[in-house]
Amino acid sequence: MQKTKKWRFFTPARVLVIGFAGLILVGAILLSLPIASQSGESLRFLDALVEATSAVCVTGLIVVDTGTYFNHFGQIVLISLIQIGGLGFMTLATFITIMTGRKIGLKERLLLQEALNVSTLEGLIRLARNVVLITMGIELVFAGILATRFSFDMPLGRAIYYGVFHSISAFCNAGFDLFGDYKSISDYVGDPTVNVCIGFLIILGGLGFTVLADMPRLFRRERTMLHTKLVLITTAFLLVVGTIGYYLFENDNLGTIGSFSEGTKWLASFFASVTARTAGYASINYETMTQGGLLWSVILMFIGASPGSTGGGIKTVTSFVIMLYIINVISNRENTVVFGRQVARQTIYKSLVISVMAVLLVVFSTMILTITEHVDFLRLLFETTSAFATVGLSTNLTPTLSDPGRVLIIILMYIGRLGPLTIAVALAARQVDKANLKYPEGNLYVG
Amino acid sequence: MQKTKKWRFFTPARVLVIGFAGLILVGAILLSLPIASQSGESLRFLDALVEATSAVCVTGLIVVDTGTYFNHFGQIVLISLIQIGGLGFMTLATFITIMTGRKIGLKERLLLQEALNVSTLEGLIRLARNVVLITMGIELVFAGILATRFSFDMPLGRAIYYGVFHSISAFCNAGFDLFGDYKSISDYVGDPTVNVCIGFLIILGGLGFTVLADMPRLFRRERTMLHTKLVLITTAFLLVVGTIGYYLFENDNLGTIGSFSEGTKWLASFFASVTARTAGYASINYETMTQGGLLWSVILMFIGASPGSTGGGIKTVTSFVIMLYIINVISNRENTVVFGRQVARQTIYKSLVISVMAVLLVVFSTMILTITEHVDFLRLLFETTSAFATVGLSTNLTPTLSDPGRVLIIILMYIGRLGPLTIAVALAARQVDKANLKYPEGNLYVG
Ligand SMILES: [K+]
Ligand SMILES: [K+]
Repeated sequence: MQKTKKWRFFTPARVLVIGFAGLILVGAILLSLPIASQSGESLRFLDALVEATSAVCVTGLIVVDTGTYFNHFGQIVLISLIQIGGLGFMTLATFITIMTGRKIGLKERLLLQEALNVSTLEGLIRLARNVVLITMGIELVFAGILATRFSFDMPLGRAIYYGVFHSISAFCNAGFDLFGDYKSISDYVGDPTVNVCIGFLIILGGLGFTVLADMPRLFRRERTMLHTKLVLITTAFLLVVGTIGYYLFENDNLGTIGSFSEGTKWLASFFASVTARTAGYASINYETMTQGGLLWSVILMFIGASPGSTGGGIKTVTSFVIMLYIINVISNRENTVVFGRQVARQTIYKSLVISVMAVLLVVFSTMILTITEHVDFLRLLFETTSAFATVGLSTNLTPTLSDPGRVLIIILMYIGRLGPLTIAVALAARQVDKANLKYPEGNLYVG
Repeated sequence: MQKTKKWRFFTPARVLVIGFAGLILVGAILLSLPIASQSGESLRFLDALVEATSAVCVTGLIVVDTGTYFNHFGQIVLISLIQIGGLGFMTLATFITIMTGRKIGLKERLLLQEALNVSTLEGLIRLARNVVLITMGIELVFAGILATRFSFDMPLGRAIYYGVFHSISAFCNAGFDLFGDYKSISDYVGDPTVNVCIGFLIILGGLGFTVLADMPRLFRRERTMLHTKLVLITTAFLLVVGTIGYYLFENDNLGTIGSFSEGTKWLASFFASVTARTAGYASINYETMTQGGLLWSVILMFIGASPGSTGGGIKTVTSFVIMLYIINVISNRENTVVFGRQVARQTIYKSLVISVMAVLLVVFSTMILTITEHVDFLRLLFETTSAFATVGLSTNLTPTLSDPGRVLIIILMYIGRLGPLTIAVALAARQVDKANLKYPEGNLYVG
C-alpha cells in the first residue's frame, strides 16, 4: 500500500532558507570589496557578513558606521539588500515574473504563501502585486516628506538621497541610517516631522502586508478580516502601553529623556515604543537606559511586529493569542473566543511552541555571550533579543563584540528573520511518521 | 434542560489555597512573638510573614538568620511548618484521619489527589500512608548519620538536634540551616559525609512521592510506571549536566570554587547542581558567582524538581515533554512518543502553558524589582526565580530587600509552591461555558 513519491528537494521552506543565505553571501562579498568603502580599504569578511545579514534580515545591528564607513556604492548595496530582504525576495521575483508575462505556477504560489504567511492560495497573486505597489507608494510619499525636511539641514541632492534611503530603511523596519557616529536619528529626538514620518513608516511596515491590503475595506467601512482587527488592536495597545512604560521608567534618567521638556519626553517615549517593535532606529542612548527601561525594551522587542510584515519577534498576534488563552485558563473558560470567533487549538498550540522556542534560543544565546564577552548580563540579553527579533537596537555593544559573538549574532538574525519553524522544516529530510502510526497513551504528571 | 447544581465552595483547590494561607498566617504570628527570638525582641510582622511563607512553601529565602536570631521555640516552629508544608498539610491530615480510624471520603481523596498531583483515585490512601512512612523513615536514617557527623564538631545533644533539623529541612527541599551568619553549609563545602547526606535527602525529596512509592518495583526488577522512568532519567541527566556546567563556568572563579582542590571543585559543582533544583542549601557564595554560573542556576532553578515532590519549579517532566516535543517539531515528527508510549496532546499543551505562565511571572516580577531595588538585574532575576521555584538560594539579597520587594517575594513563593494553575482554578468562581457552546473558527496567522 506504500505510495512511491517523487522526493522533491526544493520545498518552499528550502528555497527561502537557501535564497536568503545566497543573498547574504552575495551582499557580504560586495560589501567587503574596497570599492564599497569611503577609505578604499576592504572590510574584513566576517564584518561584511554581519552587515549583509543585518541588511537582508532587516535588523540594523552594525559593526561599522553606515554613514561614515561606506561610500555611495556600499550604501546602495545595503539599501538594496534591505528592500529585497524586507519584501521577501520571492515576492519581488514573482512580481517580476508577473510583469514579464510568464505564467505563475502552483510552486511559485506556495513559495509566496510561505513568505507572506498567508494560508490560502486564493488571491495570492493579487496580494503580491499589491504588496509591491503599496510598498513603493508608501516609500515614495514619505521619501518626499523626509527629503523636504532634510533639505533644511543639507544640500538638496543629499536631502533626496537621505529621504529615499531612510524611507526604505524605516518601512522595511531595517533601522539603518546615514547620520554617522552610530548616533541613528538622535539629532532629531525632538523633531516632530522626522519622528512622525519615520514612526508612521515603521508602524505601516510592521502591520504586515495582509493587513495593508485589507485596510482599504476599513476605510470603506466594510467587514475586515479577524486578523486585521486583531493586528490593529494589539498594535495600538502595545504602542500606547509601551510609550507609558518608557515614560515611567526613564522620566528621571538624565542619560536618556530626563533632561528633555515634557513634550519631548513623551515624543521620545513614543518613538522608543514604536522602534522597539522591531525597527531599531534610536533617538535616545540605550547604553545609559535604566534596568527597567532595558527590560521593558527586551519585552517589546521579543513581542515584535505583526505576522507577514517586515518586522520580527514572536509577533503581535502570537502574543495576543497566548495572553487571551492564559486569561481563559485562569478564569476557567474552555473556549478561546475573540470577536465571536473561536481560535483554533492548533493556533494556540503553535503560538505556545513558537514562544517557548524563542525564549530557549534567546536564553541559551545569552549564556554563550556571558562566556565570550565581558559585559553586563542585561546588555547581553538586550543584544541577543535585538538580533533574534531583528530589531537592531543596541547598547552600543555590537561593534565591540568578539568574533564568536559576531558569529552568534549572525545566526540569531538569520533564524529570527526566517523563523525557527521554517528553518526546522527546511532542514528536516522528510515528513516522518506522517502515517497513522498509533501508540498507546502514557500517563504523565506535569507542573 | 439546565441542571440545578449545588454550588460547593470548598473545592479541593480552594482548600489547598486557603489551608496554606492559614498555616502561613499562624506561623507568622508565632514567629513574630518575643518568645521565638533569642534576644526576646519581637520580629516585625512583615519579616515574620516572609519567614513563615518561606518555611511553609519550603523555599528557604530568609530575612533573619535562622541559627542566631531564633531560639529553640522559633526553630521548632519553623521546622514544623517545613514538615507540614513539605508533606502537604492534607496528606498529614488524611494520615491522622486514617490512624484515628475515621473513614476517608471521596472529598478527602480528591484533596489528596490535588496535593500529590496523582490523577487516579485508585490506591491513593495507600499512597498517603506510604508517603508519611517513607518520609519518616528516610528522615530518621539520615538524621542519625548527620548527628554522628556533627557530634565531632559539637556536643552530642546539639548534634542530634542539628541532625534532625537538617534532615527534615533537606528532605523537604526547604534549605533552612542553623549554622549562623547566613552561611548555610559552606563550612562543609569539602566534607563528603555532609554533602552526600544532604545531597541524597534533597534528591530523594525531589523525586516526588509517586516515584518513591514506585521505587521498590525498580529494585524487584518489575515493570515501573512510565512516569517513574522519566523522572529518574531526567533527574540523572540534569544532575550530571548541571555539575559539568557549574564546573566549567566557575573553574577559574576565586569567588566560588577557583581556589579549591580538583576533588572539592567537583564536589562543590555537584552540590550546586543538586541544590539548585530546588533545595536551596548553599556550599558556595552565589554573590561572587560568574554571570554564566548565575544564569546556569536560574535555568536549573526554573526547571526544578519532579511533580508531586517537595520541590518547586516548572518540574522535570514538564521540561522533558517540552524538549521532546520541540525536537519532534524540528525533525518534523507528528507523534510525541517516549518508551513506546504516546504523550497526550493535553499533556504537551499543559506543559507549554505552565512554562509560558512561569516565564511571564518571573519576568514581570523582576521588572517590578528593578524599580523597588537598586541591584544588578541578574541578581534580581536570580532572586525572583529562586522565590518562584521555591529554591531559597540568594546572592545574599533577601535580607536587604525593600518592603515592596519582600511582599513580592512572599507572593512568588506562595504562587510557586501551589502552582499558578491551582490558584487560578481556586479563584475562578465556576466553570464557565463548560457547555457545548460552539463558535465558528477564525483564521489567524501567528509567528
Ligand atoms: K530592524
Ligand atoms: K527550597
